[in-house]
Amino acid sequence: MNNYPNKLLLDPSPSANEAMYDLAKRLFPFPRSLTGDGVRRTLAEVQTLLPNLQVAEVDSGTRAFDWEVPQEWNIRDAYVLDESGRKVIDINTTNLHVIAYSVPVDEVVTREELDKHLYSLPDQPDVVPFVQSYYKRRWGFAIAHRERMALPRGNYRVVIDSTLQPGKMTYGELVLPGSEEKEVLLSTYFCHPSMANDNLSGICVTVFLAQWLARLQDRRYTYRILFIPETIGSIWYLSANLEHMRSKTIAGFVLTCCGDERQYSFLPSRKGETLADRAALHVLRHHAPEFKHYSFLERGSDERQYCSPGIDLPVVSLMRSKYHEYPEYHTSNDDLSLISPAGLGGAYDAMRKTIAILEQNYTYRSTVLCEPQLGKRGLYPTISIKGSTSGIQDMINLLAYCDGTLDLIGIAETIGAPAWQLVEIADRLLDANVIERC
Amino acid sequence: MNNYPNKLLLDPSPSANEAMYDLAKRLFPFPRSLTGDGVRRTLAEVQTLLPNLQVAEVDSGTRAFDWEVPQEWNIRDAYVLDESGRKVIDINTTNLHVIAYSVPVDEVVTREELDKHLYSLPDQPDVVPFVQSYYKRRWGFAIAHRERMALPRGNYRVVIDSTLQPGKMTYGELVLPGSEEKEVLLSTYFCHPSMANDNLSGICVTVFLAQWLARLQDRRYTYRILFIPETIGSIWYLSANLEHMRSKTIAGFVLTCCGDERQYSFLPSRKGETLADRAALHVLRHHAPEFKHYSFLERGSDERQYCSPGIDLPVVSLMRSKYHEYPEYHTSNDDLSLISPAGLGGAYDAMRKTIAILEQNYTYRSTVLCEPQLGKRGLYPTISIKGSTSGIQDMINLLAYCDGTLDLIGIAETIGAPAWQLVEIADRLLDANVIERC
Amino acid sequence: MNNYPNKLLLDPSPSANEAMYDLAKRLFPFPRSLTGDGVRRTLAEVQTLLPNLQVAEVDSGTRAFDWEVPQEWNIRDAYVLDESGRKVIDINTTNLHVIAYSVPVDEVVTREELDKHLYSLPDQPDVVPFVQSYYKRRWGFAIAHRERMALPRGNYRVVIDSTLQPGKMTYGELVLPGSEEKEVLLSTYFCHPSMANDNLSGICVTVFLAQWLARLQDRRYTYRILFIPETIGSIWYLSANLEHMRSKTIAGFVLTCCGDERQYSFLPSRKGETLADRAALHVLRHHAPEFKHYSFLERGSDERQYCSPGIDLPVVSLMRSKYHEYPEYHTSNDDLSLISPAGLGGAYDAMRKTIAILEQNYTYRSTVLCEPQLGKRGLYPTISIKGSTSGIQDMINLLAYCDGTLDLIGIAETIGAPAWQLVEIADRLLDANVIERC
Repeated sequence: MNNYPNKLLLDPSPSANEAMYDLAKRLFPFPRSLTGDGVRRTLAEVQTLLPNLQVAEVDSGTRAFDWEVPQEWNIRDAYVLDESGRKVIDINTTNLHVIAYSVPVDEVVTREELDKHLYSLPDQPDVVPFVQSYYKRRWGFAIAHRERMALPRGNYRVVIDSTLQPGKMTYGELVLPGSEEKEVLLSTYFCHPSMANDNLSGICVTVFLAQWLARLQDRRYTYRILFIPETIGSIWYLSANLEHMRSKTIAGFVLTCCGDERQYSFLPSRKGETLADRAALHVLRHHAPEFKHYSFLERGSDERQYCSPGIDLPVVSLMRSKYHEYPEYHTSNDDLSLISPAGLGGAYDAMRKTIAILEQNYTYRSTVLCEPQLGKRGLYPTISIKGSTSGIQDMINLLAYCDGTLDLIGIAETIGAPAWQLVEIADRLLDANVIERC
Repeated sequence: MNNYPNKLLLDPSPSANEAMYDLAKRLFPFPRSLTGDGVRRTLAEVQTLLPNLQVAEVDSGTRAFDWEVPQEWNIRDAYVLDESGRKVIDINTTNLHVIAYSVPVDEVVTREELDKHLYSLPDQPDVVPFVQSYYKRRWGFAIAHRERMALPRGNYRVVIDSTLQPGKMTYGELVLPGSEEKEVLLSTYFCHPSMANDNLSGICVTVFLAQWLARLQDRRYTYRILFIPETIGSIWYLSANLEHMRSKTIAGFVLTCCGDERQYSFLPSRKGETLADRAALHVLRHHAPEFKHYSFLERGSDERQYCSPGIDLPVVSLMRSKYHEYPEYHTSNDDLSLISPAGLGGAYDAMRKTIAILEQNYTYRSTVLCEPQLGKRGLYPTISIKGSTSGIQDMINLLAYCDGTLDLIGIAETIGAPAWQLVEIADRLLDANVIERC
Repeated sequence: MNNYPNKLLLDPSPSANEAMYDLAKRLFPFPRSLTGDGVRRTLAEVQTLLPNLQVAEVDSGTRAFDWEVPQEWNIRDAYVLDESGRKVIDINTTNLHVIAYSVPVDEVVTREELDKHLYSLPDQPDVVPFVQSYYKRRWGFAIAHRERMALPRGNYRVVIDSTLQPGKMTYGELVLPGSEEKEVLLSTYFCHPSMANDNLSGICVTVFLAQWLARLQDRRYTYRILFIPETIGSIWYLSANLEHMRSKTIAGFVLTCCGDERQYSFLPSRKGETLADRAALHVLRHHAPEFKHYSFLERGSDERQYCSPGIDLPVVSLMRSKYHEYPEYHTSNDDLSLISPAGLGGAYDAMRKTIAILEQNYTYRSTVLCEPQLGKRGLYPTISIKGSTSGIQDMINLLAYCDGTLDLIGIAETIGAPAWQLVEIADRLLDANVIERC
């Protein structure tokens, strides 16, 4: 009758791992930024998998708390020609070559003048960095430092065929209603062009989590799933939905850096100890005990907004290799070779477990005083010999903590068992009428 | 005028150590189980030492929360004869040979049929395990695994001369009134036949603690001392006395595994932090700092009932080698050679200290502001030179925490001194009128 | 407009280090005790540096809680002559030679009789110990143990030219009003004759802290600065000012053992966690991370009174090598060679930082929801590339915790930065109107 996590986690669909990776491959080339057609193409592709995704747009200049929605940027081409007409920099190699939000330019400049518009990483001389200038009008190119150093004196023609003008900011929103009004937030961002772990991986895992959630019968919670540009997207969305989100959200997750196989990472909410913190930490302790537990001081994505003072949503991130922490981060080396079906699948699996235990995180209380007589219900061995109860310790321990104060996650933490395995046991005890939900 | 722990702990009686061990020797052979004449003989022997012990009986079938009192079992003889008439299994060797609560049988069976009724421990092939089947009617024998394997093909006569029928469940109860209605519970169990550490040792220590408590003048608390069968005994007793026990009990102790010399063990209450937890832990930290601190998840005796949700009595166990944790546990090797006068005496001593500090666990407050002038009361050296106050640091520190919020145990924990030594100091400060009890 | 700690800590006066040491040299020879002319001369010398210091006197016999003010003691000379007329003990060598509060004597005594009046330290045979007998009338001499052992048989003339009679107890008090009535207490003691770390150093640092505080514009808090005899001084002062101090004091410091260079030490208040504890600990964690964190059980100065039950002022000590803990403590080896300008300067600097963060310990809240857009205010880099925000992490983290619940010290502890550096950042954010004080 009820969907318990063990059943929740039995997904009849074929493995999502390869499908997530395929989606990443399709989306990789689109020139995404805060705004523009790259974003529209991305969301259109997502809609082929999530037909109910609502794509919406907000006018440039719209106020959002202390910010305003920026102008819309579109990029058609960008390159630098040397005197021989050879393209020494070409956006067709990687979108990262053009500084995001570059204004249009078509000039011939000296090598010295050109250099003022070049960005590179001396410490990582062979990669193209990801560079943006969203709020100051300028133009520029990102380039591998070694190539920059090798550019000879002479004149260069710089061409950026872009537009930066009043338009729209585009985002995607999918709300899956549950039997309760309380909501779980899944938020991912699409503003990073042509980088795989940060953050195509987040988009892909979010899409397949949304598919899984859409298939769930008897969803308990309502799911609010956002595809937005980082920072301005979450700020705008919060400014438009703050009271609702503050009153309804019981847990939220920023989905980012979900793609590689190197490790698992956890970034807590600002205050910690929220239901989202508890659920994700519980899952990681059992799913990947070697996970890296970061501090909120090491945050860097939309939890900066969701957890800010006065907003204070219970939002965390459960990640693979975390932004800022892996060498390929925000460079052209964060490409499709960095992520893998298994890497994406690990994040997807951990997030499904997290959601499954949220769905089943009831508080239980015993219906009888003292231990119930499990033997007469077929739940306890009829013969007692040294070791005979070792197979039912989780059941006995679960019973001991069905006192109406601990929720399932709290009990699971207390007795040291994965919550998603306890649900099946709780189910049998509910059927036997020796416990009940509060 | 007051009995302070130092005086409490001055016991004029001869050492109880040998007397406890002698009692264990006398009780060892009786065929104890949940019910029956073995229990009655045990309690009659205890009454020779505790004349005021009340022995009471409850009808089979009486409801007790989710349980009911089982039928009464009596065992007169049990053996297995091989074809030559030799007793290959004989209860006269050890009571453990017959499965507790075996129904009567007198049949000739094949070796194969016999084997279905044999219980042994392949991992401990030379010991007879303790096996019970209290709630499913069956018969059987426990046997050393090596002997079981050596039984040849052929026919065997199996004889169990037992009765299992409506009767009584017997238990012992002794209430020693104190000047306060608040109660301390001492609960031990007698249902294990012919095993020494678990749990003849618990019976013996309880008997001598009761003798000591009966001799105490000016007992502050009322002591409720129970000799019961494990599980059904405590469940029945709770069902009959719950409101009283819930309103009166300030601390309780399940006395079990009190007999060997290998170590001390502590099992907390479910919630921890009760007065019983605090007192026993404080004693063990000073009495036996190397004690093993178990988790409530490792429980296994009547605290399963006393600490269950909705009952929530403040009950702990202060033990020597804990049940489940020593190799001889629940086997024929848990015999009189495993325990010793010194082992029993250590548990007895630790429990007396625990009770002594409970009796004296007052909260104090200073009667003066700032430090009192101890010198004019002869409590402080009149000459001050480097090191001159080293002998009175406990007094000075005790005074610093007589603030009306900490009880004696709390002060002792704060200043790092055994509470039973602080009582003498508090006595002098009370006499000097610089502190008072709250 | 506001004085932020960074500005507070910019002291235009020449380094206090040498000046503090010079003061110690001037005060060293005066024969200080609980009372008497040595104290009056000391306070007169302090008044040359703190002209507003109020010197007050209390009659002998005045009640102070459980105590009374002792008689006034003055010492003019003290020596022991051997039969040849040689001074074998002479107060002119060190004031420590005469037991503090010795009654007058002028007698010829045998070697045996003399020995009953001699005090020495067998474990430290070459030093003269500091010995007092404030509350029992006696006379005596302190002497190096090796010299005591070498005194031959014979007669000795003992002369102590002292007076011990009803008179006055003298103390100094300076109250520097602030814009708030809440007070910070600085308390030091002068009753130790001719010892440098304990406690001339405390007097010297207190004098120069008082000078610095007197120069501060816009003092937030009122400063109550006491120069008193230990124990009876603080007890009397508390008895006369208890309600005021209890209602006004937000933090207090006993200034003692501030002079050597070996280490820093912290002694908490009785309850810990007061504002004084938090501020001093925060400073030491950054100023001297290797500091020694003592327990309140290791107290030994006027916090014994300030923190006693029912008084409960938030008083701690931030020290260099703590009393009781260094070998020269309370001996003639605690002389001017033990302390140094740098040692005194370190304590002075740590105390100034502690006071500076108390003065600026406001609670902040964000004036905007979500992160403010720092870029448009020139506080955030306009170009974003890997690592571009590393220089402003403290600002971003500070903002994240301006939630109206954490004070500056709490934020600084949370984000791992010294509070006195955060004030400058908070200043810029206040100027930008993105945060405000609660």
